[in-house]
Amino acid sequence: MIIQLEPNIKEEELEVLKSQLSSIKYKANKVSTQFGDYIVAVGKKDFDIRTIGKLPGIKDIHRVSDAYKLVSKKWKVGQTQLDLGDEVKIGDGEFALMAGPCSIESEEQIQKTVEHLKANGVKIMRGGVYKPRSSPYSFRGLGIDGLKLWHQIASEAGIKIITEVMMVEQIDSMIDYIDVFQVGARNAQNFNLLDALGKVDKPVLLKRGMSGTLDELLQSAEYIFSNGNEKIMLCERGIRTYENAYRNVFDINAIATLKEKTHLPVIADPSHGIGVRRFVDKIAYAATVAGADGIIMEVHHSPEKAFSDGQQTLNFQEAETVYKKVDKYLELRDSL
Amino acid sequence: MIIQLEPNIKEEELEVLKSQLSSIKYKANKVSTQFGDYIVAVGKKDFDIRTIGKLPGIKDIHRVSDAYKLVSKKWKVGQTQLDLGDEVKIGDGEFALMAGPCSIESEEQIQKTVEHLKANGVKIMRGGVYKPRSSPYSFRGLGIDGLKLWHQIASEAGIKIITEVMMVEQIDSMIDYIDVFQVGARNAQNFNLLDALGKVDKPVLLKRGMSGTLDELLQSAEYIFSNGNEKIMLCERGIRTYENAYRNVFDINAIATLKEKTHLPVIADPSHGIGVRRFVDKIAYAATVAGADGIIMEVHHSPEKAFSDGQQTLNFQEAETVYKKVDKYLELRDSL
Amino acid sequence: MIIQLEPNIKEEELEVLKSQLSSIKYKANKVSTQFGDYIVAVGKKDFDIRTIGKLPGIKDIHRVSDAYKLVSKKWKVGQTQLDLGDEVKIGDGEFALMAGPCSIESEEQIQKTVEHLKANGVKIMRGGVYKPRSSPYSFRGLGIDGLKLWHQIASEAGIKIITEVMMVEQIDSMIDYIDVFQVGARNAQNFNLLDALGKVDKPVLLKRGMSGTLDELLQSAEYIFSNGNEKIMLCERGIRTYENAYRNVFDINAIATLKEKTHLPVIADPSHGIGVRRFVDKIAYAATVAGADGIIMEVHHSPEKAFSDGQQTLNFQEAETVYKKVDKYLELRDSL
Amino acid sequence: MIIQLEPNIKEEELEVLKSQLSSIKYKANKVSTQFGDYIVAVGKKDFDIRTIGKLPGIKDIHRVSDAYKLVSKKWKVGQTQLDLGDEVKIGDGEFALMAGPCSIESEEQIQKTVEHLKANGVKIMRGGVYKPRSSPYSFRGLGIDGLKLWHQIASEAGIKIITEVMMVEQIDSMIDYIDVFQVGARNAQNFNLLDALGKVDKPVLLKRGMSGTLDELLQSAEYIFSNGNEKIMLCERGIRTYENAYRNVFDINAIATLKEKTHLPVIADPSHGIGVRRFVDKIAYAATVAGADGIIMEVHHSPEKAFSDGQQTLNFQEAETVYKKVDKYLELRDSL
Repeated sequence: MIIQLEPNIKEEELEVLKSQLSSIKYKANKVSTQFGDYIVAVGKKDFDIRTIGKLPGIKDIHRVSDAYKLVSKKWKVGQTQLDLGDEVKIGDGEFALMAGPCSIESEEQIQKTVEHLKANGVKIMRGGVYKPRSSPYSFRGLGIDGLKLWHQIASEAGIKIITEVMMVEQIDSMIDYIDVFQVGARNAQNFNLLDALGKVDKPVLLKRGMSGTLDELLQSAEYIFSNGNEKIMLCERGIRTYENAYRNVFDINAIATLKEKTHLPVIADPSHGIGVRRFVDKIAYAATVAGADGIIMEVHHSPEKAFSDGQQTLNFQEAETVYKKVDKYLELRDSL
Repeated sequence: MIIQLEPNIKEEELEVLKSQLSSIKYKANKVSTQFGDYIVAVGKKDFDIRTIGKLPGIKDIHRVSDAYKLVSKKWKVGQTQLDLGDEVKIGDGEFALMAGPCSIESEEQIQKTVEHLKANGVKIMRGGVYKPRSSPYSFRGLGIDGLKLWHQIASEAGIKIITEVMMVEQIDSMIDYIDVFQVGARNAQNFNLLDALGKVDKPVLLKRGMSGTLDELLQSAEYIFSNGNEKIMLCERGIRTYENAYRNVFDINAIATLKEKTHLPVIADPSHGIGVRRFVDKIAYAATVAGADGIIMEVHHSPEKAFSDGQQTLNFQEAETVYKKVDKYLELRDSL
Repeated sequence: MIIQLEPNIKEEELEVLKSQLSSIKYKANKVSTQFGDYIVAVGKKDFDIRTIGKLPGIKDIHRVSDAYKLVSKKWKVGQTQLDLGDEVKIGDGEFALMAGPCSIESEEQIQKTVEHLKANGVKIMRGGVYKPRSSPYSFRGLGIDGLKLWHQIASEAGIKIITEVMMVEQIDSMIDYIDVFQVGARNAQNFNLLDALGKVDKPVLLKRGMSGTLDELLQSAEYIFSNGNEKIMLCERGIRTYENAYRNVFDINAIATLKEKTHLPVIADPSHGIGVRRFVDKIAYAATVAGADGIIMEVHHSPEKAFSDGQQTLNFQEAETVYKKVDKYLELRDSL
Repeated sequence: MIIQLEPNIKEEELEVLKSQLSSIKYKANKVSTQFGDYIVAVGKKDFDIRTIGKLPGIKDIHRVSDAYKLVSKKWKVGQTQLDLGDEVKIGDGEFALMAGPCSIESEEQIQKTVEHLKANGVKIMRGGVYKPRSSPYSFRGLGIDGLKLWHQIASEAGIKIITEVMMVEQIDSMIDYIDVFQVGARNAQNFNLLDALGKVDKPVLLKRGMSGTLDELLQSAEYIFSNGNEKIMLCERGIRTYENAYRNVFDINAIATLKEKTHLPVIADPSHGIGVRRFVDKIAYAATVAGADGIIMEVHHSPEKAFSDGQQTLNFQEAETVYKKVDKYLELRDSL
């Protein structure tokens, strides 16, 4: 059960509410975000929610039977839209293209990518400065210095930055240089990191775990929301299966299904979703017509020379074709 | 290595070829189909194929390193097109819609479905008369009598029939009443059935196994082809994973990838691919833009009352919307 | 609900029973096996089964809520034991070792294997004469002639034969030469084959599908039982997962769980369960202490030269060690 | 390639080595642990390692072709043994039983558990004070205060403590109160946490990810080792599959296979491995005979009342039976 409080609810009204919940043995979790104050009450007893709904200081009340609550569409019917500033918006009718390299490598690489994005009207650049790598001996990214350099070039060009944060301690040092924090598949259930990202006022793109269920993804989003940050988008990036013909299986079902389960924007990552450069385009189109609110994709001016994971990375020319075709499919989708 | 023989190759020329292959320790498999005669030679030794290519009676020769041979695009670059007669074609630019109930149930049901398909320009009707069911106590289909009734009504209306064959013994009795044999996911590696279907001159739609790899699917198709039947199409119908939010995960990657691996038409089954009625449409659109050559879909005049598996079945109105939108997406796809 | 009938139930008593079931809208399936006559009644209505239990001609009656019925331990609490003759028994305290090559190759191979088995007190020999192979160009077994040769040598030596049957048409020609029919993983849901094996009076070893659930395995067994053959054993042979360090993942959980779900013997196939020769022993021991009623294992006098699948095949010396250690673990298991 | 340095290698000798590696374009990673100094050199060029092996200051040198290096058995053939003090050892012939509740709940619970363990000769107690929970509204553990209380009671009784650490910031506050840090399945690729655990001198039990490969598990262990901590053990705890009859599939293959791939102790978690209380015993026995170096298991004085995850938790009586039988199987295993 979710109870939205009036902004000006009085202390004594809150006490009445809490004692009512306590009397029916519901555990009350107080949630305060950028946009509102809520009580998420969890319990088993069946009762008439109107009794509580009529109390003073209560704006809205709903039963939510899902394991996740505040991110459920049973709570909020309308679509959430994230606003990154400068007219860059995601969700609720605003489709977002995000593109860039696997890893930030050099000033030259950043500049070339920024130019490419500008030339194609792409407003958000992806790239890693902290890279989760299976082997400790692999390149692990340029770190905070790389991010600062990137921020300087990108912000001048009016390009927004999305990049992965891997640990709580990185948040503070990164926050001034990024527009969206990305949580990678390997950290999809790093609950301390999710808690901490709930306490800042920056959008978060949350990737599904390598073999995460939709339910787990939504509960991970609930961690962020319930800590105070409503600015969340979800990302399908392929799941691990027995099939070896590609790196992952992009779960197109997840796009359609998540759009029904949650009000949060749903982003598709076709690059990791298939992991094979020459098929990334098809997955991007499929995800678009299945209802995605955006695409995040790997591009590099010279994929063969990319520091890491070049196998799924498009060159600029290939990427341009994808941007244009995605636009066409989107236009048709929205017209039907 | 595949060697296509001239239609008029002489016996002694064939002997020369065989002895050459034997001398390099290649095992020669003779394949004769509706459309040609081939030698599929399997061996390890590396040698100059031109030596053989220049022999009299040889039309064409290619190395094919894949585990599958004749169905590989490395053998045949152009797309295969299946011709069902009466201008109903599948593949190589001809997109096929196939729709109908899970099970054939009654004359009334057949008639309603046929009318619905005609009204929407859908030329192929699916439906089961032999149903593979997990439990022996479930309804297992109307059998051959149901098929004959269906055939009578459908052929009068100019509608083609696709239906599942479950065992070798059924082939003969079914063949006059069907236009396409379907091999179900559970029989995807029933090699005797595949052998037998290679010996008839009817198109076969081969479904991917529940957890079959693309390589296994293509090798199963190779069984049919190498027994003499080139009229094959492949069908992606979702794979089994850990995710319980839907019955299967439709493998959109498979559509894009199969189109590169094989010259055979690739069909998508969005109904089983997600198994949730209200999302079937999205999967149909996604598969279309990812490059599918057709869609096979469950429709019923009253899904709630369907004998079996109603959960993924669209009603006529829902299906009409899908046909129309698929058409639009297809038109855009082909124009880009 | 399962109703066991008295052997001498009168026709009119049966009619009374059927009309009672019909009146509560239960569908009655009559099952007659080597050992008894049953009515498996499937319906939804809740009612007092004692009403039916008291009717004349009824020996026993039980509710069975599982999807499978006659193979459930909810129906039969005691363990089923299969008797292959000559004191060779499986289940209910009788542990069975079965060993032999992947494929039957030659008289010499058969003789060597038979000698090896005799020398080690192993009474059942496995081997394939019809081989399910992914590629149509692979060796597919010696067929019925190989089986006859094998039968001649094995029966003289007092060794029982278990071999795979792949299609209904093979049953009649094989039945006089085998002691146990094996249904392979790829045919685990070949329902026509299961039906047909239910109509003969020979034991059947049923392998779990490559990604089959326990529930599906038990329902496949139910097909055999409900067609009239109670002589069934189940076989865990590894499942398909994302892990590539071995061919399959042997599902040790299945051994423990199946023993609770069903009264049928549960056999472990460690060879396919891991697919790596030097670890087969460990899986055999693990399966034994987890409660298996037997082990089926690949051995060959010269695994490196085996026609097929030598990678998981033990040589005679390795196999001897396994037989002996399995015996020790079994002895300890039964003493605890 | 791994190069073990002499403890007293001179600075100039090290420089010579580094320049040699540099000249063949190998990247040198210096690793210093509690037990030795190593250079892990990664590169592509083939060369004669004896050239380097003969340099002064070099103790040992080996090629290791695996993706993981220092944890590979190709580097260290003998088994690693962890010493927890007070004669509590794990690995290389020392089998470890670890048992305790899912969550630490109360003083009474700790005391009862400690008594139970002492009475049964179990020297290591497991329990969670920081709990990773899918939902943010679930009980997340007693935290550091719970740990201090636990430490006080356990250390008095001579019982060692293993408990999960979820984030880098917790390490310092926990380190004086624990004997083994546990890394949970959800953090199996939380590389920053692994880095940090490599910098302390405490044993770490590293769980395999929910769908982690053995290779990933070993590379995660390499993170810890290469940061300076050789005291690592690995834990198989079941993988995620399509099968719903149990929570996870315990991968018995992993036990046998890991014992060959690494010199680190391999622990089995049968509780999570199957997730069904009445089958935990069978999995414990199976893992033991398959070669595990220890068992970690959930026990509670009253599983029905446990705060969390009671479904797989044994009561004291059940656990006693398991300890005893594991001992018997172990004795037999080591005698064969």
